[in-house]
Amino acid sequence: MIAIESVRVSLDDAMQAAVQALLAAGVPAENAHLQADLLIDAEARGLPSHGLLRLPRVIERIRNRVADPVAIGRISWRGDALASVDGQNGLGPVVGVHALDAISERCSNGAGVAAAAVRSCNHLGMLAWYARRIADRGQVCIAMTTSEALMHPYGGRIAMVGSNPIAIGVPAQPRPLVFDMATSLVSMGKIHDHANRKAQLAPGWALDEDGEETVDAERAKRGSIAPFGGAKGYGLGLAFEVLVTALTGAALGRDVVGTLDSIHPSNKGDVFIVAEAGFGEAVSEYLAAVRTSPPVDPANPVRAPGDSSDVRRDRAATEGITLPGALWDEICTLPLNF
Amino acid sequence: MIAIESVRVSLDDAMQAAVQALLAAGVPAENAHLQADLLIDAEARGLPSHGLLRLPRVIERIRNRVADPVAIGRISWRGDALASVDGQNGLGPVVGVHALDAISERCSNGAGVAAAAVRSCNHLGMLAWYARRIADRGQVCIAMTTSEALMHPYGGRIAMVGSNPIAIGVPAQPRPLVFDMATSLVSMGKIHDHANRKAQLAPGWALDEDGEETVDAERAKRGSIAPFGGAKGYGLGLAFEVLVTALTGAALGRDVVGTLDSIHPSNKGDVFIVAEAGFGEAVSEYLAAVRTSPPVDPANPVRAPGDSSDVRRDRAATEGITLPGALWDEICTLPLNF
Repeated sequence: MIAIESVRVSLDDAMQAAVQALLAAGVPAENAHLQADLLIDAEARGLPSHGLLRLPRVIERIRNRVADPVAIGRISWRGDALASVDGQNGLGPVVGVHALDAISERCSNGAGVAAAAVRSCNHLGMLAWYARRIADRGQVCIAMTTSEALMHPYGGRIAMVGSNPIAIGVPAQPRPLVFDMATSLVSMGKIHDHANRKAQLAPGWALDEDGEETVDAERAKRGSIAPFGGAKGYGLGLAFEVLVTALTGAALGRDVVGTLDSIHPSNKGDVFIVAEAGFGEAVSEYLAAVRTSPPVDPANPVRAPGDSSDVRRDRAATEGITLPGALWDEICTLPLNF
Repeated sequence: MIAIESVRVSLDDAMQAAVQALLAAGVPAENAHLQADLLIDAEARGLPSHGLLRLPRVIERIRNRVADPVAIGRISWRGDALASVDGQNGLGPVVGVHALDAISERCSNGAGVAAAAVRSCNHLGMLAWYARRIADRGQVCIAMTTSEALMHPYGGRIAMVGSNPIAIGVPAQPRPLVFDMATSLVSMGKIHDHANRKAQLAPGWALDEDGEETVDAERAKRGSIAPFGGAKGYGLGLAFEVLVTALTGAALGRDVVGTLDSIHPSNKGDVFIVAEAGFGEAVSEYLAAVRTSPPVDPANPVRAPGDSSDVRRDRAATEGITLPGALWDEICTLPLNF
């Protein structure tokens, strides 16, 4: 077989290949569909760092018994509206969806708002996927997760804080507003991508392992990434880190392992908050007004968060996704190699 | 009376003067103490834009009957853990504290997490004050509020989004971690301050009323402020705006009035989320590790959010606060002029 530069694959074919690989690794069908859907949605929305690239690692973690393909997480209600979830080393989207659906139901069955504090759950991946699931059913959602320490404090030299993303989903027409960002200026995936392409980093993105500014991606891989927006992004990322741990008891800072390696159980934490929403018409009208407000560049209309991602997703539904040939080959042969 | 350049005032004297002014305006003692404490805490923590400068406006709003000095807000439980609060045009900290205390109690009495969706409440002021109140009693708090449209979208020319701040409070020793930021790059207060001092703005801070970049503070006052951190800060601010409205039904974007003027009832929204926290020791140890991690500048140790604010507050407790002489004169004569 000759690895070609890149291949175009339909979403259905990608789904089938990913599910086959997961089934072969002992993942029950329902869990396999959740994990595959998350990765392919990220791929389709133009976030390949959270796409099928992650599948071999997921399967390697199952092989190494640091990810349990069957576990869905054990929920205990610490309060009437607060679920403590032991993820039992289950797959991120499997544990995440079970926790989310439980609090979403609790929320609509009288609580009005409910939250889940999750630990011992594998990498959640693209948070927007979770927030959209909830916003699609008419509730608002805040999703947070922590990560390995990748980011240096504002004014600091070494990685002490996760890239700690947040996603917010709010019901609206024609689509929910789903915002998703990391608190780091760029992702470690982007640093690795620059290293692979031997491209220089932009100044200010990263420090090397000695805590000095660098534009050398290889050196940055052993160093740390800057927070976005200076002191504010740092403060936000740090606040998310301690907020998540105060609720979950997850590991903090440099003690976090298990989302970037294949050997450690994941000890980061995840928090979901879901609440009953209303006023969708006002929100939708406002978002339309934002989109039609005067742009700096007449050729580039103002966008709401997620607009470009939605356009890419629509396009991928008809045109498929483009993958590196080597990655597609690897995915297709995963079932043979477990 | 000759207005002197600046005066130093003890926190007690400032408190007494502010309370006297509020009492004279018909504010009951308990409400007056809450409003005065908020403003003086902001002043003491080095945030004069949210300090005593705001007191004359609060009182003018009472005089104009767009702020009700007596109202504490009417709470109805939309769900077991979700409070809908009609602020009844009450003072921000009065309605805010009553809402917060109600959900904090609901949270500890079995819910585990609870939220308040507040509308028709006057300007909350410095959000850190609310988050700290909750973190001091061992719960985590997320506080959000919206504002008049002050910020242009990323890639946009006119103000469409509030400066929409967030505060996060997490219990820790020796003090809680309290993070508080606006999603705008700078505050409109800072633009006004530059205009008063005839100082130029930094490039990138603001657009003028024609949507063009400007460093002229007078022109920026009629224009809009940039989001912090580019597209991410814009997305975050917009997501907060629609999240708050989805929960509260508050006005959106350019329809928001009543926190910067003295004539309109306030129609922005506020959201508080409170949850039971644990793991304080791990959080405290982590924050200590962050503070002692290697700094870029050996003379400037790494700080956690709020550290500088705490230092300033401690200093103000012994040394007092420094106010413009004209402002202090105005505050001291407020009781005579109502």
